[in-house]
Amino acid sequence: MIKIKILCIGNLKENYLLAMQNEYLKRLTNYAKVEIKEEKEEKSNDVNDTIITQILNKEGERLLKKIDDNDYVILLDLHGKEMDSIKFANLIDKSMTNGYSSFCFVIGGSYGVSEDLRKRANTKLCLSPMTFTHQFTRIIILEQIYRAFKINNNEVYHK
Amino acid sequence: MIKIKILCIGNLKENYLLAMQNEYLKRLTNYAKVEIKEEKEEKSNDVNDTIITQILNKEGERLLKKIDDNDYVILLDLHGKEMDSIKFANLIDKSMTNGYSSFCFVIGGSYGVSEDLRKRANTKLCLSPMTFTHQFTRIIILEQIYRAFKINNNEVYHK
Repeated sequence: MIKIKILCIGNLKENYLLAMQNEYLKRLTNYAKVEIKEEKEEKSNDVNDTIITQILNKEGERLLKKIDDNDYVILLDLHGKEMDSIKFANLIDKSMTNGYSSFCFVIGGSYGVSEDLRKRANTKLCLSPMTFTHQFTRIIILEQIYRAFKINNNEVYHK
Repeated sequence: MIKIKILCIGNLKENYLLAMQNEYLKRLTNYAKVEIKEEKEEKSNDVNDTIITQILNKEGERLLKKIDDNDYVILLDLHGKEMDSIKFANLIDKSMTNGYSSFCFVIGGSYGVSEDLRKRANTKLCLSPMTFTHQFTRIIILEQIYRAFKINNNEVYHK
């Protein structure tokens, strides 16, 4: 069975977001083994470019340790490539045809992600030019992954 | 105080979505008088182009009745214009400067919206090339409206 990891910085704070996450995790059990891995957010009272780079590198190192060599890594990135749900489903399908059986989605923290992590990404995906909260991004990508499996299995998507 | 109407086809079915909607409605009370107006979805067992046009026209007529002459109408539309959160905030700000004090966001049903409604829209807005559920769209636009007020008031956005 396909493995999917969602790597995130920070955890879901609201019950309604947790309920949403659980709903999509439940729906996805038909298609993949999905795991959410949350990493602690690095914080600093002082903020300047050097400190941000330090934060990103620290978070990046920890995230990179959770990524396996044979993971297909999709980085959620405001400067990434936009695609519609069909193209996203095709990307998953094509990667599976090319031999990938594990996918790793990365959602960075408040300041984005490190250069190293950016380099490791197989695809950088932009959900929208609009800024969404990181917590919401997680729910949206879960829904799009579920939608992708429905599309790739020619199944009707009920809401 | 600024008035905002969110006109939608169909209601929110899940408790977690209702909880999220309530959260953003609560947060928005500081900035605007926000009202959600749900219209019943027209249904048909048979689906062809003629029937879809009939459904859209019926839904469209009911939605148009809820729109006031002086509303600035923003239609959520997959074929609309994409903008980032800053540009969206600017749109709201500029429209207010131009004398608009009521905004009406329209989220269509499964088949979109009628031609007449499309013509009435002052702006057609695309959140993402990806397909989101209509229920999700409602939450996303509420969050973006809240974000726009935070931006326009130079306030820090906490998560």
